[in-house]
Amino acid sequence: MVIASTAVNFCGLESVLHMTCCNQTKEEITKHLQKAKHLGLKNIMALRGDPSGEEWEEEAEGFNYAVDLVRHIRHEFDDYFDICVAGYPRGHPDAQSYDQDLKYLKEKVDSGADFIITQLFFLSETFLNFVKDCRAIGITCPILPGIFPIQGYGSLRQLVKLSKLEVPQQIMDVIEPIKDNDAAIRNYGVDLAVSMCRELLDSGVVHGLHFYTLNREVATIDVLRRLGMWKEDPRRPLPWAVSAHPKRRVEDVRPIFWASRPKSYIHRTQEWDEFPNGRWGNSSSPAFGELKEYYLFYLKSKSPREDLLKMWGEELNSEESVFEVFTNYISGEPNSNNNKVTCLPWNDDPLAPETNLLQTELEKVNKRGILTINSQPNVNGKPSTDPIVGWGPSRGYVFQKAYLEFFTSSEMVTALIKVLKRYEPRVNYHIVNVHGKNITNAPDLQPNAVTWGIFPGREIIQPTVVDPVSFMYWKDEAFALWIEQWAKLYEEESPSRMIIQYIHDNYYLVNLVDNDFPLENCLWQVIEDTFKEHDCPTDQ
Amino acid sequence: MVIASTAVNFCGLESVLHMTCCNQTKEEITKHLQKAKHLGLKNIMALRGDPSGEEWEEEAEGFNYAVDLVRHIRHEFDDYFDICVAGYPRGHPDAQSYDQDLKYLKEKVDSGADFIITQLFFLSETFLNFVKDCRAIGITCPILPGIFPIQGYGSLRQLVKLSKLEVPQQIMDVIEPIKDNDAAIRNYGVDLAVSMCRELLDSGVVHGLHFYTLNREVATIDVLRRLGMWKEDPRRPLPWAVSAHPKRRVEDVRPIFWASRPKSYIHRTQEWDEFPNGRWGNSSSPAFGELKEYYLFYLKSKSPREDLLKMWGEELNSEESVFEVFTNYISGEPNSNNNKVTCLPWNDDPLAPETNLLQTELEKVNKRGILTINSQPNVNGKPSTDPIVGWGPSRGYVFQKAYLEFFTSSEMVTALIKVLKRYEPRVNYHIVNVHGKNITNAPDLQPNAVTWGIFPGREIIQPTVVDPVSFMYWKDEAFALWIEQWAKLYEEESPSRMIIQYIHDNYYLVNLVDNDFPLENCLWQVIEDTFKEHDCPTDQ
Repeated sequence: MVIASTAVNFCGLESVLHMTCCNQTKEEITKHLQKAKHLGLKNIMALRGDPSGEEWEEEAEGFNYAVDLVRHIRHEFDDYFDICVAGYPRGHPDAQSYDQDLKYLKEKVDSGADFIITQLFFLSETFLNFVKDCRAIGITCPILPGIFPIQGYGSLRQLVKLSKLEVPQQIMDVIEPIKDNDAAIRNYGVDLAVSMCRELLDSGVVHGLHFYTLNREVATIDVLRRLGMWKEDPRRPLPWAVSAHPKRRVEDVRPIFWASRPKSYIHRTQEWDEFPNGRWGNSSSPAFGELKEYYLFYLKSKSPREDLLKMWGEELNSEESVFEVFTNYISGEPNSNNNKVTCLPWNDDPLAPETNLLQTELEKVNKRGILTINSQPNVNGKPSTDPIVGWGPSRGYVFQKAYLEFFTSSEMVTALIKVLKRYEPRVNYHIVNVHGKNITNAPDLQPNAVTWGIFPGREIIQPTVVDPVSFMYWKDEAFALWIEQWAKLYEEESPSRMIIQYIHDNYYLVNLVDNDFPLENCLWQVIEDTFKEHDCPTDQ
Repeated sequence: MVIASTAVNFCGLESVLHMTCCNQTKEEITKHLQKAKHLGLKNIMALRGDPSGEEWEEEAEGFNYAVDLVRHIRHEFDDYFDICVAGYPRGHPDAQSYDQDLKYLKEKVDSGADFIITQLFFLSETFLNFVKDCRAIGITCPILPGIFPIQGYGSLRQLVKLSKLEVPQQIMDVIEPIKDNDAAIRNYGVDLAVSMCRELLDSGVVHGLHFYTLNREVATIDVLRRLGMWKEDPRRPLPWAVSAHPKRRVEDVRPIFWASRPKSYIHRTQEWDEFPNGRWGNSSSPAFGELKEYYLFYLKSKSPREDLLKMWGEELNSEESVFEVFTNYISGEPNSNNNKVTCLPWNDDPLAPETNLLQTELEKVNKRGILTINSQPNVNGKPSTDPIVGWGPSRGYVFQKAYLEFFTSSEMVTALIKVLKRYEPRVNYHIVNVHGKNITNAPDLQPNAVTWGIFPGREIIQPTVVDPVSFMYWKDEAFALWIEQWAKLYEEESPSRMIIQYIHDNYYLVNLVDNDFPLENCLWQVIEDTFKEHDCPTDQ
């Protein structure tokens, strides 16, 4: 369920949750379904599952067949879920007969299943005959063929044994002679799957395909590519991954702060009833919830402690050691222990391609203690199909205001504030420390749109904003990550831990927006001026 | 009240409605106030008014003094209105004494007046003493000086007589010798007003000025200019005049169709409870009301029939005569009777400055029967302070998609539709006839933003849209104007009338948007291609 939820909520992929029912109580199943509903899952593949005991026996009041699960879902959740059931083109191996199995299938459909996915098969006529027989007894719902590209001799034998299927002789005749040549078998398997898919699609009966990948995607991608159904560059509808959760589908604007931590953002906002779907500002002060609630789960790093220590330093000697970690993350250069820094507490993943555009400048400023955690370049009307900064429908134009977010010392902030006076009102800023001391020139707590797109026949879309209200919630998270992910790697009272604690207690979190997106990004000049001001303060 | 309402609703100017009360019944006054409230007027200047009878007598239960009106407003409308009352720096001429008059003023304030505007005076010390006396008896509300720039000898004498004021000797000494030199007196009046205003503003007592213009604005503008308080180029907060009506102040998007007929738009939408204040599309199908309701008032031209006939033709011989009227409106050239066409049924006013940018092209296409009624050029990020296309706060950037709206014959439409296929999806179109036959490529009835602005620290503002839903309401109005303003100028059954009726019955109303705002406007090429297609149709 975690995988399905991740696919739906974070990747924006429609998913079908597979559920088995035998050997489970009604309460367990209901609870499981409630959880699925809460996570935004809408589709269930209702299966009996393989009974665990050697000699399985029906339970009088229990869930013995998939049809029991279908009935239960419809009874308890009405039409909320879409339900899929399994069809067996050659009949279920345990069924009395092919005809009897068809009758069971009809019962599943009549009980509320919406569509059928079939067990794998080897010849297209097997499937087409099956569909004909289904229609003959009044099964009218869609039936998707289960396609299995043969990927190797061993795995095929294993599968055949489990599924009690027979491989047609004409296929075995090809495979047997090449059984030790994995590549040859895979090529043949792809060829076979492609021609079968073509026949099925051409039949007019089939309106979709289901692939059994068995956790190996390469062959399936090959098949789809050859069918012309694989999109090399799936268009991003927005600059961030749109969730497929039914409540969140309308979401069309997010604060830029969580750009590198979308899971945390989705988690913190999951209880929102409605998502801001127009002007973000109108729903200001949304309930982000207290930081503590999701503390443990979302502030921990995914990586093991040893890996983190290798990247971020077994021992820190000074604040400059920390500057170096940030610099190495940006540059991709290995550190003194010859380890690359592939993540930071605020950035789970390596640098985004558009951040690469800023790499040289970022490296330079991190070295000197402007510890950047988020940035984007300005963009003045690039095509929406631009491979790096593009998003949304084709034939549009995308725009960005330059953005830079970083931690820095209070001495640097003093210099920065002096410099920023010279950039009014071109640059908007928010400067805040862990105690919430907040210095800003944002007018009336209004959001500043920093990414927007103009498309044919549409209103303006503005999916990313710098929002002063949510920045104060983000700040709690951003500061907490110093302690939870970094400081706690070290012994209490150790010098390394005290350095991170000092930064946490004394540094400021700063964000800057250059409003003049058609001009050259001035934020580097602001930082340059700040360094000068920091080194030789001017009067005033 | 019509003037005040126009100022508030159409021009977006805060206004103070002057109301007198003597010789009126309570019911009359309440009704008047209810109407004012409905029109969005918030400020009332409560006056007694000049009794109409020779020998005025108090009515026992009636409104005898302004204080009665103040009490009534507060009693019936609570805090809805802001109330202003008149103060007399030398005492009211009818009052028993200056001190007694001050007591009356305090009564008015105690009854609920919010601020005081004074009768005119000639020396700043007159006002300053008056304020001191007011404060001494406990009048704490703001007191605005009434400034009267002397504009001529005759008008001064007249005013003095009516107001029973005395002109100080030092002023008469200057004026008497130059009483026949109007310009000299006006200059002196402006000088005098400027130095008086400076003294008042410097006193620290005065936080605003009230000018008695007596319907002549020139001297007041001179005074304000010399005080540095006159803005030559008042910034337009949006590309259209924002209404000052309390309900409409939040309005930030309008369909482009009514751009030349804002009064009609405001009238048709006046009953909307809330204005779309974000995405126009979310409030689709708003109640524009039936056309009939406001038919008579808003479809009639302001100009007399004879003037319209001179402009639009005493007699029309063919559709080409109509083309000529449109062409002359665009070019500004006089027609064959040597009359300029300064308005059209769809355009009350002469061409907007930004339409001038398109003049040559517009002239060319109108000559050939593309009868344009609305258009805007494309704009790709001009400064918001641009004198022609700029609007909104300074330091922003404004954008537009090119727009063209016109009537044309069904033959031309046939050619146009063929041509438009070659411009998909660059050009969005709506093509509709009087019967509602509607041809469009707009996706899902979504609005297309055609004017937007990017400002420092703000969300994107998109104040003008081409909205498919409201276009169908506009279409009714646009076609009705042919009949109501133009056809009805001629005798029934006359050839002229039948020509206009024919156009009304058979022409289409078309709007085109070029979505590629960074490129050269392609709409002229679309029309050019349409002419070619119309003259020599290609196969297909």
